[in-house]
Amino acid sequence: MLDEEPAGGRTQVTVELIEDAAERLHGLAVRTPLLESTQLNEALGMRILFKPECLQRTGSFKFRGAYTKLSRLPMERRHAGVVAYSSGNHAQGVAAAAGLLGIPATILMPSDAPTIKIENTRDYGAEVVFFERNKDDRQALAERMASERGASIVAPFDDVDVISGQGTVGLEITRQADYMNISVDDILCPVGGGGLLSGLSTAVKAHMPLTRIWCAEPEGYDDVIQSLAADQLVSVTVGAPTICDAIVTPQPGWITFDIIKRFVSGGFSVSDREVMDAMAVLFDRMKLVAEPGGCAALAALLQQRRQFAGRTVVVVVSGGNVDRADFSRILSEASALENVLRA
Amino acid sequence: MLDEEPAGGRTQVTVELIEDAAERLHGLAVRTPLLESTQLNEALGMRILFKPECLQRTGSFKFRGAYTKLSRLPMERRHAGVVAYSSGNHAQGVAAAAGLLGIPATILMPSDAPTIKIENTRDYGAEVVFFERNKDDRQALAERMASERGASIVAPFDDVDVISGQGTVGLEITRQADYMNISVDDILCPVGGGGLLSGLSTAVKAHMPLTRIWCAEPEGYDDVIQSLAADQLVSVTVGAPTICDAIVTPQPGWITFDIIKRFVSGGFSVSDREVMDAMAVLFDRMKLVAEPGGCAALAALLQQRRQFAGRTVVVVVSGGNVDRADFSRILSEASALENVLRA
Repeated sequence: MLDEEPAGGRTQVTVELIEDAAERLHGLAVRTPLLESTQLNEALGMRILFKPECLQRTGSFKFRGAYTKLSRLPMERRHAGVVAYSSGNHAQGVAAAAGLLGIPATILMPSDAPTIKIENTRDYGAEVVFFERNKDDRQALAERMASERGASIVAPFDDVDVISGQGTVGLEITRQADYMNISVDDILCPVGGGGLLSGLSTAVKAHMPLTRIWCAEPEGYDDVIQSLAADQLVSVTVGAPTICDAIVTPQPGWITFDIIKRFVSGGFSVSDREVMDAMAVLFDRMKLVAEPGGCAALAALLQQRRQFAGRTVVVVVSGGNVDRADFSRILSEASALENVLRA
Repeated sequence: MLDEEPAGGRTQVTVELIEDAAERLHGLAVRTPLLESTQLNEALGMRILFKPECLQRTGSFKFRGAYTKLSRLPMERRHAGVVAYSSGNHAQGVAAAAGLLGIPATILMPSDAPTIKIENTRDYGAEVVFFERNKDDRQALAERMASERGASIVAPFDDVDVISGQGTVGLEITRQADYMNISVDDILCPVGGGGLLSGLSTAVKAHMPLTRIWCAEPEGYDDVIQSLAADQLVSVTVGAPTICDAIVTPQPGWITFDIIKRFVSGGFSVSDREVMDAMAVLFDRMKLVAEPGGCAALAALLQQRRQFAGRTVVVVVSGGNVDRADFSRILSEASALENVLRA
């Protein structure tokens, strides 16, 4: 295992860093399985393998990156604690990782975050401070708070250690596909700031260079798609309504986009309607509870199903933290799969 | 692997038969993970590992036994097909296994079975024939139909091949616990006719003889508990209302009870209310979709939590085939975990 040291010394996300993260996470993170439904495969005319990170500790992949980052903090910096800002899944990941390592954690959360995410973050032992999503500059708030306390900031995505932790999702996919003797044509992954997508891509392209990687974003927040098209960072105006709270970001990160533009073949933007239908498909066919943002990749695959016909596709379900009432409402409003496929 | 031969020659469920079933199921059945939530562990004061068979192919453990049975049918008996009777999960298991092996399947189902189970059984390619749950003798109907066609009956639980297939759940638990270096104190498992419970017990007791095994039944259908108390087969009167359609049986099987009475320490009966609360806990904390009968073991553990305090417990979630509307209704009526624990 690598020495504990600040990320300052590391600017590149490497497969070695991802393998080190996998070692740190062994026995702590869930090695989520690859799940499939032959019925769904037949209905869609392709082979789909789901990587259900909703089953991950804290209900999303975010635990992987947060724990990796915190476990690499040098001992002398741990007592001053960590500060993070997050709409909820990173918050829970950092809070749970900090709890495991005995590090004090303060989390800035938007006041409109889903109740389940706020409650869980407190449950893991973190202090929660609220900010206004469309008013406050959360990063500036976090930096001020961290400098006052001498605490370390755990960035939600644009950080080599965080990215290498999320990359263990990709490493597991390559190992599981290998074990199952499956050749994966494509991987579809939801994207917000790009931590998961960039880490996953780094691991996957090292082991399965022919596999194409695609991302899925909510309509109105297609900053990665626009950035890929422009071959440079593009910001979108925040404000469009979306149910995908977990993956609402105005622009990708510098580090993440640098990786994404090398490895990702393209992206698809999905509507709330398409995301709701995908959630219901995961309920009906896979018995998985996924949150809206966590379903974006399946929503994109359903939208683009003709393009992916006949292929073997891994779909990442990135999180499952959704309130009971929201889930029930979405189930009641979503279409049956047959109707989705008829559209 | 064992030769294909009718089960007539085998009357004992052995670990070797279960290991043979595991080989047959390799790459076809999902090797469901052991999942846990540190929050739930802390709230309940014990370590709980869930074995989520709702993630199994066809949405329940039943695929394991059905495929094992069918794959051991001699070639010359396959063309005449198979007949099964089932409230739904065994139906789907047999239909899917028959589809994989190219064997024609006819399934007798109660007319009030959940829509999702009927539709899925047809989707897998089986012919569905309805019977009246409280009027017709489903076993007699099945036997007449099978003898008319020369078809083989796939009994839902009281069959050595079926039991050995379900036993692979237990085999996996022992291997996963070993890999994770966990000493399992107790296993809680839902029980209907006892196929899963008896197969699981056989595998577990061979490898972890000190682990205690418990079963959970719906109120009004506690035939296994009553049979254990009487040390002989006891039948209950069918008719009490329950939401646990998957595990409604009037009495355990002869073969299954013979194993259960040797290996099972006792059982707990659970109310619809307790089952609904358990379903909501699996939604909130584990992001799993479980059907009512599939949650009976967790319901029992919540009910008996003081007795199991401080222990390491594996809870089997046996299935997840539940309609959207039923699931939403149950989520809206169920209590929050804090209220369950306060009661």
